[in-house]
Amino acid sequence: MILGFSTHKILPDRPRVNRQLLDQTQFPLLASLQTCANRRDAPFYTPGHKHGAGTPDGLRTLLGMPALQADLPELPDLDNLFAPQGVIQEAQELAAAAFGAEQTWFLTNGSTGGILAAILATCHPGDKIILARNMHQSAISGLVLAGAMPVFLQPEYDPQLDIAHSITPEAVTEALSAHPDARAVMMVSPTYYGVCGNVAAIAQRCHQYSIPLLVDEAHGSHFAFHPDLPTPALAAGADLSVQSIHKTLSALTQAAMLHVQGDRIERDRLTRTLALVQSTSPNYLLLASLDAARHQMATQGKKLLEQTLSLARQASAEIAQIPGLSLLTPDQAKTPGFTALDPTRLTVTVAGLGIDGFRADEILHNQFGVICELASLQHLTFIITPGNQATDIHRLVCALKSLPSPFSPSPSLLPPLSSLLSPLPSPLPPLSPRQAFCAPTETLPIAQATGHISTELICPYPPGIPVLMPGEVVTEAAIAYLQQVLAAGGIISGCSDPGLQTLKVVRM
Amino acid sequence: MILGFSTHKILPDRPRVNRQLLDQTQFPLLASLQTCANRRDAPFYTPGHKHGAGTPDGLRTLLGMPALQADLPELPDLDNLFAPQGVIQEAQELAAAAFGAEQTWFLTNGSTGGILAAILATCHPGDKIILARNMHQSAISGLVLAGAMPVFLQPEYDPQLDIAHSITPEAVTEALSAHPDARAVMMVSPTYYGVCGNVAAIAQRCHQYSIPLLVDEAHGSHFAFHPDLPTPALAAGADLSVQSIHKTLSALTQAAMLHVQGDRIERDRLTRTLALVQSTSPNYLLLASLDAARHQMATQGKKLLEQTLSLARQASAEIAQIPGLSLLTPDQAKTPGFTALDPTRLTVTVAGLGIDGFRADEILHNQFGVICELASLQHLTFIITPGNQATDIHRLVCALKSLPSPFSPSPSLLPPLSSLLSPLPSPLPPLSPRQAFCAPTETLPIAQATGHISTELICPYPPGIPVLMPGEVVTEAAIAYLQQVLAAGGIISGCSDPGLQTLKVVRM
Repeated sequence: MILGFSTHKILPDRPRVNRQLLDQTQFPLLASLQTCANRRDAPFYTPGHKHGAGTPDGLRTLLGMPALQADLPELPDLDNLFAPQGVIQEAQELAAAAFGAEQTWFLTNGSTGGILAAILATCHPGDKIILARNMHQSAISGLVLAGAMPVFLQPEYDPQLDIAHSITPEAVTEALSAHPDARAVMMVSPTYYGVCGNVAAIAQRCHQYSIPLLVDEAHGSHFAFHPDLPTPALAAGADLSVQSIHKTLSALTQAAMLHVQGDRIERDRLTRTLALVQSTSPNYLLLASLDAARHQMATQGKKLLEQTLSLARQASAEIAQIPGLSLLTPDQAKTPGFTALDPTRLTVTVAGLGIDGFRADEILHNQFGVICELASLQHLTFIITPGNQATDIHRLVCALKSLPSPFSPSPSLLPPLSSLLSPLPSPLPPLSPRQAFCAPTETLPIAQATGHISTELICPYPPGIPVLMPGEVVTEAAIAYLQQVLAAGGIISGCSDPGLQTLKVVRM
Repeated sequence: MILGFSTHKILPDRPRVNRQLLDQTQFPLLASLQTCANRRDAPFYTPGHKHGAGTPDGLRTLLGMPALQADLPELPDLDNLFAPQGVIQEAQELAAAAFGAEQTWFLTNGSTGGILAAILATCHPGDKIILARNMHQSAISGLVLAGAMPVFLQPEYDPQLDIAHSITPEAVTEALSAHPDARAVMMVSPTYYGVCGNVAAIAQRCHQYSIPLLVDEAHGSHFAFHPDLPTPALAAGADLSVQSIHKTLSALTQAAMLHVQGDRIERDRLTRTLALVQSTSPNYLLLASLDAARHQMATQGKKLLEQTLSLARQASAEIAQIPGLSLLTPDQAKTPGFTALDPTRLTVTVAGLGIDGFRADEILHNQFGVICELASLQHLTFIITPGNQATDIHRLVCALKSLPSPFSPSPSLLPPLSSLLSPLPSPLPPLSPRQAFCAPTETLPIAQATGHISTELICPYPPGIPVLMPGEVVTEAAIAYLQQVLAAGGIISGCSDPGLQTLKVVRM
């Protein structure tokens, strides 16, 4: 039989792992899955393809038989994600030790699942939570599910680069003083651009109020494994961090981890909230890839990341020489919202060439097969990991060198966002995101939406700071700004009408 | 760049697919992923392993390079799950046509994600929903997230087999008449044992009240593809069904679909609630496996399922000849809560041998490598799919024949559940599941828990009907029953203390 609801019946009692004895050269979950994949049992369990025997040709070619043979359910040897007592427990304890946590949970619903569970575990309905306005949309989903009331902090904003950084310790202090009843502070660090905030100072402020600091560290899972990388959030004092192990390490897409330390997070409750938002049929390929990623970093992370850093430094140096291009560099890290930069994340400003980032992306992609992670009006952002080779860097530099020379017409300029940045902290919105999400809605022509309450999260890129959140009042200034962004060639995400002719608001 | 928040910028406008022109021999998503996997671009995007180049040896052996090369993010050619306009849209439209839906959504967080979203899309906070008490735990998670108030219906219960079937049309009629303000009815069909309820009659009752019927059809995704299988929920009139395509068809574990027809489900809202509970970094191996499973069934499902049915019939016939064993058979399908049986799901009663199902499972597993899906005190349940071969059936029959002869001592008998089955419909609990989940808790010795409000979902197997739900009052009868189940060797899931010495209740 497969497990799920009956772990305690099948699994022998295992003693708790002794932290001192953790052997990072082991990969208990990966090894057990490999053993099960090699067995030729008579399978009367899910999944229906039965070790790939029933898989159609096209999918078998795409995946190969090894992956199919390892796509197994909660067999007794494979433990139970939601009540681990075997190889998942061991793998999670090894991960906790390697990533500097006291306890680690493996996630198969991405960092999204971790962010949702973290908010649900710290906020009861109606509770206040202080959070950066440039949080990932999963944090807003967490507010909707938890019924929490957000106190939004504007992140530091660099008007020249048109990039949002981290929230500042000062803003957090002010918000805590205005809202001493807040249950938690949540921030993103590093940002998509690799920019880290002052997690240490912010954690200290939170702890003065005896509340936890939750960090969306989706893009920083490699930080713990090389001294030249920014300090990981946990090492800086955060109580909880969520990491997309697939983004910068070698897990499969959608595999992530949630780490906790200290006693400001109720761990039992967190375990229960994680069970609320994750599939009860977790995919073991994803889970095993987390074990493998931990093993790789714990045993050879420093060496691998040394090579990665070396490739990234070489790329930076060569790109800096290309006329018309400039780079976000660690020496710009000297403001309260920008205290460190991940050197493996290259943000290249192409505006000096007289073309915008979208056009540059098209050229790189179509003519050179060089694909960036993120394009915006002024910049392209490239992620370099241990998976990249010297040839990739060579192709990147060659492609960038071939971009049109700096005599083209200037790209449109974006309107200054600064005018929209409300004082810190923002006032509480009239409705919580949950109330706005659940309210009856109507779709209004944009000209008539002013004064109504938005049900949409409207976020212009750049700079990736939402201008309207569900529950907030639609202002004329916000609409004017969004229309300017569109006119300038920017992207607006979240709107039910991408052309922004209409807006979905709470029906009055 | 990768997509996610910027689809409309990159993808060319595509005309809506013409249903008449749908070509089920195509697999647009799988084909596009294969093309991208074959490309040798210079990857500066996630995932960090970069086509497997950074994958450590152990994981590379487990998965093989093909799967790693296909583990890709939302590249422009791969569309965006949350705003599909390209190959995902096409693949979903093909799936809708094949599964008999008007619209289909691909899910990467399992059927769990679909059940959560379905409840969130139909129930606002405080709304009533009528649902079977033997729903999957994800439905209770959905109640917690939505803040809905459950009107629980006891499923039909077979005391001889100690198995819970479906809810009955009569029970639904009574509940609707007592709670005409309910927003939806939700049921599970087929059950884990392959037992189907009278979806058609229940749908009709729902539609008289203009509310939708939501069906957890996790175990019935193959029904649409062979006339000898039970009628699919949609064909019987359900408004929404959720199917674990990985359970009986050939998708990867954790890949599922949600289907909708008619206008009783607000589809925009459903799209938004699905985005709340699913990773924003969806795994494309899972998504492509859904496209492949649909293609396989649409093009050769009838032939493949004919073979599967033939294997299942052969197994049934041979098992029925084994002294001491009996089978759940379609001719038992003649009660309001048991109108059809999935013939590919074999539930074998071993109680006649004088051993319990757990012991029989151990023997089959350890001595014969024959692994069932589910073991309970009296039964073993086996899932037969197009992935099974004749040799599997041979091994199954041989293994069952070798079980100890019927002269061993009788297994313990379970107490009759009937005493606990409350009248239909159950009274509303004092707290909603959300209120109980969010309330401050205390852990009490079981003897002192009577009269308190449970925060736990306590479910004995068999028969898999929860005895206590979060928000319900703990009764002496419930505790006595649970203790009898444990004493008889049954399994109780959901308790924070598996030995049931203590219970977590709402602090008074």
